[in-house]
Amino acid sequence: MTAPGHNAPLDTGLAVRLAARCGDLRGATSGMAKGYVQGNLAILPADVAGEFLRFCQRNPKPCPVVGMSEPGETGIPALAADLDLRTDLPRYRVWKSGELVDEPYDIKKWWRDDLVAFVLGCSFSFEEALVDAGVPLRHVEQNLNVAMYRTNIACAPAGRFSGPMVVSMRPLRPADAIRAIQITSRFPSVHGAPVHVGLPHLIGVTDLAKVDYGDAVVALQDDELPVFWACGVTPQAVIAAAKPEFAITHAPGSMLATDIPNSRLAAL
Amino acid sequence: MTAPGHNAPLDTGLAVRLAARCGDLRGATSGMAKGYVQGNLAILPADVAGEFLRFCQRNPKPCPVVGMSEPGETGIPALAADLDLRTDLPRYRVWKSGELVDEPYDIKKWWRDDLVAFVLGCSFSFEEALVDAGVPLRHVEQNLNVAMYRTNIACAPAGRFSGPMVVSMRPLRPADAIRAIQITSRFPSVHGAPVHVGLPHLIGVTDLAKVDYGDAVVALQDDELPVFWACGVTPQAVIAAAKPEFAITHAPGSMLATDIPNSRLAAL
Repeated sequence: MTAPGHNAPLDTGLAVRLAARCGDLRGATSGMAKGYVQGNLAILPADVAGEFLRFCQRNPKPCPVVGMSEPGETGIPALAADLDLRTDLPRYRVWKSGELVDEPYDIKKWWRDDLVAFVLGCSFSFEEALVDAGVPLRHVEQNLNVAMYRTNIACAPAGRFSGPMVVSMRPLRPADAIRAIQITSRFPSVHGAPVHVGLPHLIGVTDLAKVDYGDAVVALQDDELPVFWACGVTPQAVIAAAKPEFAITHAPGSMLATDIPNSRLAAL
Repeated sequence: MTAPGHNAPLDTGLAVRLAARCGDLRGATSGMAKGYVQGNLAILPADVAGEFLRFCQRNPKPCPVVGMSEPGETGIPALAADLDLRTDLPRYRVWKSGELVDEPYDIKKWWRDDLVAFVLGCSFSFEEALVDAGVPLRHVEQNLNVAMYRTNIACAPAGRFSGPMVVSMRPLRPADAIRAIQITSRFPSVHGAPVHVGLPHLIGVTDLAKVDYGDAVVALQDDELPVFWACGVTPQAVIAAAKPEFAITHAPGSMLATDIPNSRLAAL
């Protein structure tokens, strides 16, 4: 896979970052840098970052922190030696007091010396493990975004950060659902095991056709169960609701590609 | 827990075996020797034992072999140093060409020098792990036998041994079902992870109230899923259908209590 105007294959985290950095890659990173951890990005001023870190600590399934920067630093060496948080994602969203004010391709002009970046695990990592194990994923086969729903499961609050858990749903036949629970249990830092299976009304999801984010997959088949995982959209929704004075996130689908192999996240 | 007329607490495999051996214990072993592996017993003549072992090898979920005797030997030292297979179970069933011909409290008069004993893992071991983890088990709370069903899942045949898989069912809320899948995956030698969850008609179970073995639990609640595990009744049903010239099994519920701690069976 290559970016428009970019000849190198985007098959490593480094290749994706370089393509984003030079402006050749401006959209979604799904399917790129296979085998490498991609992450959700949330950047906050230092004076609220501590509170957000507490929120993540209390809600590890939707908010698994795989990396965090020092205040004002533009890199996170543990994720990638050359990482520049200001340029290495294809696209960003800039928020002021909860309002979306910009969707730039880099954030050099928005950078401040008090910013702290959080990189949160993403389901791409466990989806790769599922596909490798022969578990079919409908939205991947159909080239759609995964279906996501707001639930009635309340996150544990921390200061100004609170709100409902957002989940992603994958329809699976029962034997595949059992296998998917085993496989994703090995990946606690990328959402881990499902939070629910089978009875969506119990978590406040009354109509699977009505997604809150992403794309509705074709109707659940008679031989399938809906399986729900905690989703990295949760922290984005929580930050939007908390309306901090300033925040930057990745644009939907435009993830940070790291140099960490997905296999290194496996707990077992 | 003590046996009638028996003053020692039956809290080890040894205590259960001694109580059975001296005739003080003549019934079910459920709830006894907590922490120790209990097993299903199947004894066959050596000339069909090899075929049955192949059947077990091909169907490890319903037929997990935790111990096997040498032909004619009455002990299995790996399971318990003092074990006498002829006396140490509370009650037995003796079969000739598929017909039940005796339900004795010992099998000394039936013993033959060509017999081979198989001890197959039993759900008591994983149920203990579930209860320890706070997963509620309805049939344990209600002091009933677990509900069991014949399915439309065909076992892999071996020679004269073939037939449908028998499963046990436990109703669980979805979060407990996910936890139960994780926990029982750690115990492959006592049936391991469930074989099905949620859509019983797909495995040929059309009415949960109509059990084929055990007791029907109270109706599934609205917030529960039926979770199905491969069951040690499978090999008994397969042996009954194969009608070997001679066979001995444990009487239902009267298991072999071993000296092996359940914790030693955990794969992780």
